[in-house]
Amino acid sequence: MAILKGACVIAQSGGPTAVINASFYGAAKAALAAPEITRVLGAAHGIKGVLNDVLYDVGQEDPAELEKLPYTPSSELGSCRYKLADPEKDDRDYKRILEIFKKYDVRYFFYNGGNDSMDTCDKISRFMARSGWECRVMGIPKTIDNDLVGTDHCPGFASAAKYIATSCMEVSKDARVYDTGAVTVVEIMGRHAGWLAASAALATHFGAGPDLVYLPETDFDMEDFMARVKTLYEKQGSAFVAVSEGIHYADGRFVSEAETSATDGFGHAQLGGLAVRLAEAVKARLGVKVRGIELSLLQRCGAHLASKTDMDEAMMAGRVAVERAVAGETGYMVAFDCSREGGVYTCVPKLIPLTSVANAEKKIPLEWIGEDKCSVKQPFIDYLLPLIQGEPARPLENGLPRFARLKKVRAEA
Amino acid sequence: MAILKGACVIAQSGGPTAVINASFYGAAKAALAAPEITRVLGAAHGIKGVLNDVLYDVGQEDPAELEKLPYTPSSELGSCRYKLADPEKDDRDYKRILEIFKKYDVRYFFYNGGNDSMDTCDKISRFMARSGWECRVMGIPKTIDNDLVGTDHCPGFASAAKYIATSCMEVSKDARVYDTGAVTVVEIMGRHAGWLAASAALATHFGAGPDLVYLPETDFDMEDFMARVKTLYEKQGSAFVAVSEGIHYADGRFVSEAETSATDGFGHAQLGGLAVRLAEAVKARLGVKVRGIELSLLQRCGAHLASKTDMDEAMMAGRVAVERAVAGETGYMVAFDCSREGGVYTCVPKLIPLTSVANAEKKIPLEWIGEDKCSVKQPFIDYLLPLIQGEPARPLENGLPRFARLKKVRAEA
Repeated sequence: MAILKGACVIAQSGGPTAVINASFYGAAKAALAAPEITRVLGAAHGIKGVLNDVLYDVGQEDPAELEKLPYTPSSELGSCRYKLADPEKDDRDYKRILEIFKKYDVRYFFYNGGNDSMDTCDKISRFMARSGWECRVMGIPKTIDNDLVGTDHCPGFASAAKYIATSCMEVSKDARVYDTGAVTVVEIMGRHAGWLAASAALATHFGAGPDLVYLPETDFDMEDFMARVKTLYEKQGSAFVAVSEGIHYADGRFVSEAETSATDGFGHAQLGGLAVRLAEAVKARLGVKVRGIELSLLQRCGAHLASKTDMDEAMMAGRVAVERAVAGETGYMVAFDCSREGGVYTCVPKLIPLTSVANAEKKIPLEWIGEDKCSVKQPFIDYLLPLIQGEPARPLENGLPRFARLKKVRAEA
Repeated sequence: MAILKGACVIAQSGGPTAVINASFYGAAKAALAAPEITRVLGAAHGIKGVLNDVLYDVGQEDPAELEKLPYTPSSELGSCRYKLADPEKDDRDYKRILEIFKKYDVRYFFYNGGNDSMDTCDKISRFMARSGWECRVMGIPKTIDNDLVGTDHCPGFASAAKYIATSCMEVSKDARVYDTGAVTVVEIMGRHAGWLAASAALATHFGAGPDLVYLPETDFDMEDFMARVKTLYEKQGSAFVAVSEGIHYADGRFVSEAETSATDGFGHAQLGGLAVRLAEAVKARLGVKVRGIELSLLQRCGAHLASKTDMDEAMMAGRVAVERAVAGETGYMVAFDCSREGGVYTCVPKLIPLTSVANAEKKIPLEWIGEDKCSVKQPFIDYLLPLIQGEPARPLENGLPRFARLKKVRAEA
């Protein structure tokens, strides 16, 4: 493969994670070290930064600040949820991207995101190939939802899972502290896939966690739920329930969006999250003290509880994307091949075609979910446990996190 | 002072904190080592454990498990919110307590709680004195609200403050990640005193935190709030607001309980916390994307972000209570005398009469709050900063917290 010299653009897209900046760091460090890459540019707010010609010169950053990126949550370059049009129908965005790529001599494009972003990545890759502008395009996976196909897991998931499991252990202690009973409902992200909500079961596995865990992979039955909460409450004076935001009835309606009904006690469809509404339904039905807790953004930006394994793998994903692109590959996403045989965890990067990832969604295998539809089985625990191991040596200042402070110097063409 | 030999009872009361078990540990360790104390008993669910004759023999616990108590959130013995009657009007509870104290030869009573608990402690102390049963009674302070008078600060507050400041730093990063704007409202505990909500300003002080911080010490003005959010949003494309759950209008109505009004856009008074409702009001008024986040129980049980300073002081408070009681004192609460002169923080324990603490409430000095009523001044930062320093070496197992596992063996008389 011929040597390709030129600038690279790194961009971050979709919902941020605790370790997406670790991938940025891994890619930037490898790119800054690669003789083939003449300049490392960071796009402001994902592909919008390319379209708007807002690119930062990463080479002008203080290396000591770049080293703090892995410990800095959220997407330091900014993110977007912009969806490119089908180039067959409207190729204006693509022409603009090509124009900017030519302006800065961009020959490498690294897009760090979830399945929508891999679709964007794939479209850009194909357009560049058609246009004759040689540009190698690589996807770097990222999503707390862990729903990308073709990879054992996604960077960002394990840190959110560690945050969720740790917080659920703590809440489990607090929610059962009084002699007067209480029912506590914790709402966890994951609209279609239950990987994150299932992580709450790890807390239970280690002795202090939710009694019931509901995932979007199965249908939610309000009557069965109420009966289980009632039984638990009568037996132990408390019930602690974890629910995915995406739980739905058998007819497909999201429980969070279900209409007001005398049966489930719901009302006020516009206000309050699922946790609060489910808790209120329990209160209306069973007349007990309730509390709804939504982990909200906290679970995806909780860098102080990041998994070192996750952080290291996120960095590796960024580095491998750059190394393989420089070596001649294009049109791929970095994925992980993992083994847990004999209790030994190994993770090896591989490349999978962007087309195989774009717009697909991986859910929890049904055989990993309990027949009661409110628990997970041992294979899920075995799958997750190695991913959350290790505590990063996060930089602190005055007892608080010391995040990276980038100068973000606008690049000139 | 004569040597007093007998058993001691340690009990935990009120809302739990991240370090209330550190005080339990400090007291238990000192009591187990004191030759005057013949047996260390832990009451199940505060004073209710005494009334119900449910006492655990702490001496039968594995010392290695007791050592994990400081890192275990919530009240390991269980808590209660039971208020003793005025003994002048109804002394049945007091007679029952005396009966149990005699049954187990209890000569020392240590109650770990907030101002309500200090009132309980004070009443028991006086009743025992009147009854002629020699029993030394000491209060050990505890409250995330930091509202006890007569002490520089309360154990439990700083760990919650550290959790809040750290989480606000992380959320601040996440809440500003998109190119499309958003207004984020975080709700923090503290019904009457704003110490915890003000802690969010520490995040801002260190570069990533809320733009506006509203405390219950001042009156909330919805129009002023909306104007400030609008200005921020127009200037920087985002606004991040921290509010105390106890913010109220000038007429005293809590904003969280205010009636539906076309002016503030509120409705559905039964559902959703203040954060969600304020966020919805902003959405209704300004038509922007919003998110409400309630830190809920997470902020008071977040032991993984406990302050080592707080943990050490919580342990010290428990130890000092025992040591001074054994030395002959009774009817006091352990308090802290602190100095921050020349940037050097020192904390010295002292004893203050229970009567001086019971049912009083300490708020943030108004001169520490900005004239804009939505910021704090440097003296508050200087006050708080030393309290949140240090990271405890918390025990981990499988990448998750390893909490204490007590056997809780019922004591026999």
